[in-house]
Amino acid sequence: MNSEKSPEFCCPVPIDGYDRIMMAHGGGGRLMHRLIEGLFLPLFNSPYLSARHDGAILEFGARKLAFTTDSYVVHPLFFPGGDIGTLAVNGTINDLAMCGARPLYLSAGFILEEGFPIETLRTVVESMSRTARENEVQLVTGDTKVVDRGKGDGIYVNTAGIGIVEANRPVSPAGVRPSDVVLLSGDIGRHGMAIISVREGLAFENPIESDCAAVASLVLSLIQAGIEIHCLRDLTRGGLASALVEIAEATQVEVAIQETAIPVCNNVRGACEILGFDPIYVANEGRFIAFVPPRDAERALSLMRSHPLGAGAVEIGAVNKGTAGIVTMKSSIGASRIVDMLSGEQLPRIC
Amino acid sequence: MNSEKSPEFCCPVPIDGYDRIMMAHGGGGRLMHRLIEGLFLPLFNSPYLSARHDGAILEFGARKLAFTTDSYVVHPLFFPGGDIGTLAVNGTINDLAMCGARPLYLSAGFILEEGFPIETLRTVVESMSRTARENEVQLVTGDTKVVDRGKGDGIYVNTAGIGIVEANRPVSPAGVRPSDVVLLSGDIGRHGMAIISVREGLAFENPIESDCAAVASLVLSLIQAGIEIHCLRDLTRGGLASALVEIAEATQVEVAIQETAIPVCNNVRGACEILGFDPIYVANEGRFIAFVPPRDAERALSLMRSHPLGAGAVEIGAVNKGTAGIVTMKSSIGASRIVDMLSGEQLPRIC
Repeated sequence: MNSEKSPEFCCPVPIDGYDRIMMAHGGGGRLMHRLIEGLFLPLFNSPYLSARHDGAILEFGARKLAFTTDSYVVHPLFFPGGDIGTLAVNGTINDLAMCGARPLYLSAGFILEEGFPIETLRTVVESMSRTARENEVQLVTGDTKVVDRGKGDGIYVNTAGIGIVEANRPVSPAGVRPSDVVLLSGDIGRHGMAIISVREGLAFENPIESDCAAVASLVLSLIQAGIEIHCLRDLTRGGLASALVEIAEATQVEVAIQETAIPVCNNVRGACEILGFDPIYVANEGRFIAFVPPRDAERALSLMRSHPLGAGAVEIGAVNKGTAGIVTMKSSIGASRIVDMLSGEQLPRIC
Repeated sequence: MNSEKSPEFCCPVPIDGYDRIMMAHGGGGRLMHRLIEGLFLPLFNSPYLSARHDGAILEFGARKLAFTTDSYVVHPLFFPGGDIGTLAVNGTINDLAMCGARPLYLSAGFILEEGFPIETLRTVVESMSRTARENEVQLVTGDTKVVDRGKGDGIYVNTAGIGIVEANRPVSPAGVRPSDVVLLSGDIGRHGMAIISVREGLAFENPIESDCAAVASLVLSLIQAGIEIHCLRDLTRGGLASALVEIAEATQVEVAIQETAIPVCNNVRGACEILGFDPIYVANEGRFIAFVPPRDAERALSLMRSHPLGAGAVEIGAVNKGTAGIVTMKSSIGASRIVDMLSGEQLPRIC
């Protein structure tokens, strides 16, 4: 079978010297991007995928729909601030929001491991149902598969989502322009550090809560106010740094940010120091960056700050005409360094 | 967390005496339906899900879209007639076709196990890409997650799909009418027996090939010819029997079929006899049933037979005014028996 090998189906294996999947291939860093660029993009060969966006924009007559999917394999299933169910609904809502779309409909695909407690399944499904209801999205179609004991990890959830695009200009990496201002919707690193604290059994006076939340209403408030949004990106696997590098590389601009402008709460900073993590690489589940033209930056920031999920919004940098495809960060002592993606894995199975 | 327990969130656990997930909860039979009815439907509480259809029909202005999802956990990954990649594309295309829709766009979510060979991943992705291209659907958005060794089984694939509804009346279980004729698109049991033959190492003179195929073009030819299709259902997990029982129960009609009318090829029949399976419960991946009014039955049958994937189409029964919610089958010796779903699991991880 699979004897047909047309010329377009040529991608080199091994990729970057790896002939087997490593945990890092799912980590949101350089290796994951090399797998996408080296295997999925050439084989699927689709302009939608090549746009390197959080979702695809599909045209149906005069209407534009956004379509996206994510699987959720987070471990542990329950963590301070959420669980795999809230994550699976919020995460896909956020990917639609990053396309400038109003999320409307979700699908849910469950892969359950033999022996998984039905009571726990009920708790997860309740979380999904409640989170969907709170965000006015409907779960309209689903599927359940069961795999043998030892071939899963309790429960994996896939959600796909459909939203209707409300932004009147394309919101995507291709929209980024020199001189754009980069806004960050709040403090970073909470989701990743909440997960790792549970895994490592770290006890803090104030436990770190995940920022897991659906930011669609915040994004829609910017669109409705007429803010000219050029690009949005949520800061999941790979964190703020990877999101910035992805956009800089996809659009061949230079993004320059100020380290001192990036808010990190004290217990996240403390946990990062203990564990040797850099907060700019730690995953978030309710934070995003927005690229807007300078004339709209102040108004966008003030709108964001008036929304509970954007109360800590700040300007962290701008798009320069400098060296294309890189991200630079000026530190507190004034030195500037190039920010790259991590090549490997910082925190596996974070979402 | 999850402390909110509103009254609508009441569903009894254990379900049917089970407090843990069993393989049979994914088998397409009675236990899976009890899990759906006892847990997912009450918690998600959506009219779309309650329709018990292969997909949801969503209205966007004058256009109706079909939206569906399935995860694929088939074992082995490769089998005569297909692999997990062809299955993941064809299966979701077929679910859209069963809604009377033209499949247009797919998402793909991969859950990869650490250590999975990248060469095998490439083969699967090539299959998906080729199958999508052959059926004029586009893979437009995706996601990759990696789980630790021992927490997966190489690769699981989720696809969600969007299609545009072309039927000018609803194609769904609710459309079934007394006196409708039941058409079957071809011989049954090939997918399930192809999988089990590989697993059990059964060698036949003519190996059993899966019927894995996308039937959308066949369904669309019926719609374009103006056939009044009342309901369609593909015969995957649980086979022909479960599909008929699902529809009979959902619409509270009696469906009466003739056992002698159901085509089963000789090597499938032989393998079923050896292994003690009844072909009417064995999964198919390229077969469906159609409920049409008597006046359209002959023309529909002749159209189906003119398509390569419907060459063996037959009339197998009709909808009666008898006892509601049951399926009866008349055997070769003229005796009639009630056909029920299997309660348990005949063939795990068939798709």
